Amino acid sequence: MKKNHVDVVVIGGSAAGLVAAMTAKSFHPEKDVIVIRKEEKVMIPCGIPYIFGTLGSSESNILPDGGLINLGIKIKVGTVEIINPTDHTVETNDGSVISYEKLIIATGSKPFVPKSLKGVNLENVFTVPKDKNYLDVFFDKIKDLKRIAVIGAGFIGVEFSDELNKINKEVTLIELQDHILGNTFDIDSCIIAEEELTKRGVKITCGVKVESLEGKNKVEKVVLSDGTSIEVDAVVLSIGYTPNIDLAKKSGISYNNQGSIKVDTYMRTHQEDIFACGDCAQKRHFITGKIISVMLASTACAEARVAGMNLFDLSTIKTFSGTIGIYSTNIGDTTFGVAGLTENEAVKQGFNVITATFQGMDRHPGKLNNPHYQKVMLIANKNCGLILGGEVVGGVSAGELTNVLGFIIQNKMTITDLMCSQIGTQPMLTASPAAYPIIKAAEMISRKMIRK
Amino acid sequence: MKKNHVDVVVIGGSAAGLVAAMTAKSFHPEKDVIVIRKEEKVMIPCGIPYIFGTLGSSESNILPDGGLINLGIKIKVGTVEIINPTDHTVETNDGSVISYEKLIIATGSKPFVPKSLKGVNLENVFTVPKDKNYLDVFFDKIKDLKRIAVIGAGFIGVEFSDELNKINKEVTLIELQDHILGNTFDIDSCIIAEEELTKRGVKITCGVKVESLEGKNKVEKVVLSDGTSIEVDAVVLSIGYTPNIDLAKKSGISYNNQGSIKVDTYMRTHQEDIFACGDCAQKRHFITGKIISVMLASTACAEARVAGMNLFDLSTIKTFSGTIGIYSTNIGDTTFGVAGLTENEAVKQGFNVITATFQGMDRHPGKLNNPHYQKVMLIANKNCGLILGGEVVGGVSAGELTNVLGFIIQNKMTITDLMCSQIGTQPMLTASPAAYPIIKAAEMISRKMIRK
Repeated sequence: MKKNHVDVVVIGGSAAGLVAAMTAKSFHPEKDVIVIRKEEKVMIPCGIPYIFGTLGSSESNILPDGGLINLGIKIKVGTVEIINPTDHTVETNDGSVISYEKLIIATGSKPFVPKSLKGVNLENVFTVPKDKNYLDVFFDKIKDLKRIAVIGAGFIGVEFSDELNKINKEVTLIELQDHILGNTFDIDSCIIAEEELTKRGVKITCGVKVESLEGKNKVEKVVLSDGTSIEVDAVVLSIGYTPNIDLAKKSGISYNNQGSIKVDTYMRTHQEDIFACGDCAQKRHFITGKIISVMLASTACAEARVAGMNLFDLSTIKTFSGTIGIYSTNIGDTTFGVAGLTENEAVKQGFNVITATFQGMDRHPGKLNNPHYQKVMLIANKNCGLILGGEVVGGVSAGELTNVLGFIIQNKMTITDLMCSQIGTQPMLTASPAAYPIIKAAEMISRKMIRK
Repeated sequence: MKKNHVDVVVIGGSAAGLVAAMTAKSFHPEKDVIVIRKEEKVMIPCGIPYIFGTLGSSESNILPDGGLINLGIKIKVGTVEIINPTDHTVETNDGSVISYEKLIIATGSKPFVPKSLKGVNLENVFTVPKDKNYLDVFFDKIKDLKRIAVIGAGFIGVEFSDELNKINKEVTLIELQDHILGNTFDIDSCIIAEEELTKRGVKITCGVKVESLEGKNKVEKVVLSDGTSIEVDAVVLSIGYTPNIDLAKKSGISYNNQGSIKVDTYMRTHQEDIFACGDCAQKRHFITGKIISVMLASTACAEARVAGMNLFDLSTIKTFSGTIGIYSTNIGDTTFGVAGLTENEAVKQGFNVITATFQGMDRHPGKLNNPHYQKVMLIANKNCGLILGGEVVGGVSAGELTNVLGFIIQNKMTITDLMCSQIGTQPMLTASPAAYPIIKAAEMISRKMIRK
């Protein structure tokens, strides 16, 4: 049995593992870093739905290794069988033992499969794992299948539906809740998303439970709680992901009751030489302080940077201050973005909220150069005007507009701060300076606060 | 002579006047507000270059009055002849005297015309005032003129050149400095802008002075300092604007030696019941604290909001904290944005700077859905990592990406803060979470700082 030493071992090769390794090496160039991952080729996680329509193959969706290689980080394809925190070693499936000074667990997440759902193991029932081999089989099989039910209308389900629709599948999107994207957006945005998706040809069925999947060998029918059923050739399950902590569990790393690895603000587990980041690591909300479940590559990368920076050199100014949840997606030409708490969630969490929505155009004058309407809702704390969250519907620039909201929330800005803020505008690129939607929504909230 | 009283009188109807009036009325709904402006129809200032190409008429570029009217703000078309601060009255060109409680001066700016330049009064030598009547004549005349020299390659000059080129004019852009946009961007961005504009058919001549304009009655020739000359049918002068403070001057309002009205952080002039905002008002740099000349509708609107909020009710948390200068423009498909200090300017101002540039794609994977490269340079203070400025070259979303930079600077974020920040990413809308250019540039600076 060969035994090697590598200063920093990173387990997992997706967004969190990649960025953790690169940050570790950048900030501690004298240390050796290795990434152990199970995939030969890693999928860009958020790109997966686009393989099926816009991209046309998984080969166009590969997370490049150049960043690792150029920094001199080693890549080992294999799985870690066990971590021995006391010895500071990991054992891999090829029988190697690698000792480490610091370890980063970035084992990600796996699709949630409701085991109790009848018919879940039928042929042509697919999940959406971050696994190229699985996706290639899925992709090949689905080519000849026409009628597809996508179950679960979060981001993945919505993006998948739109992509499958692009390649002329008959798509039905089924959601238990009353609206698609209902966990992430307030109802107004959800309704617009439903309209857009319907307009494009996707059939949407909300407020129903899937009772069972029926069929002989292959899935043939989705039976719903309202007594109806849908004839299908394939089913895509997109009802969420669970943290992949099997390795952590069997290695005695502490995890919380949501099934994710407990971490502090430096991203350290209870074993101080073992860090965790990404989908497998615990998320605490930036505003509420509560433990939540958010799985976003962008959040994972932020955590990975914090982990990488603090490995050998703790710093209180390099900590992770809680998960915001900054999401965006698009359906056709329309972009949907959200940062922070929705109104619904803020109220549920006990905040006294005040909101306003402003709608304008993303060009000025509004008819210039391929314009799109732009709608921003701000959610603020009534007591102090602190921005708790924001939602955007717009054109392609609304993705970055959502990031503007993200920085506003991270910097704990208030309605008043926004009213005094400077922005940059340009006719072909943004809303008018007199009607920049974030500032206008802030102004509307100000006005409401004065009138009280 | 009729004498009226209006609680708040706003002089000027462009971006600053409009927003000041609307904010005043929103925050003080019990007060009467009037806007006195000289234009029947107001031009959207930043839209003016686009009248000539993309929009096709000034009628498509009118700042709507609905915002004023809906709030119950009166509009009076006319000019104010004099302000009497002691009496709290203004006298207008129709002989009216209006007494006010608070006055806001938003008289804007006017094109700088070098009086000493020989031939400046020849026919077909145009300036770019915010004046519909003038622009309509300009537009009509230029239709039949082919060879046009645009003198001065700031934003207006560049946008004008591109627009005139779109309608098949033979455009030569002439700039005294070594590069176009040289006052606003560091040299790398300027060179890209030159390449883009040249590729589109605009001829660029930099590093030469215009010695004279020649011609009998109409301009026929631009004579340059290098001894050459350019035959032209028309000339567009876009060499800057000067604050329009004639009224303020003759009314005894204090102004600085750059010719703009002195204001405090509440946007008050030395006469405490008289406020000023927009191009006519003094600008103090957010970072250097020095008095500068920045004329941007977006800055003007921010100042106008501060003026409007503080009219009757001063608040130290509603002050203007200094001008950042957040600019963006586009040439063809390429967007150029800048916020804060350029590297060049930061060094000149005495900052010890460290910079890094990251280039990636604005989609991920990078080939997805009409992508554009995205390049961000960050300029930070070496001592503390504070972000002093940033520059962006990218696609259409780079306008809002520039606003992300603007909020980063306004919140006095450091390189370390950025390394710990969360962003939102989506394949069709933004760069990859592992290669978000602002964060990557921050990481590159971190790495340089460690290596020292």
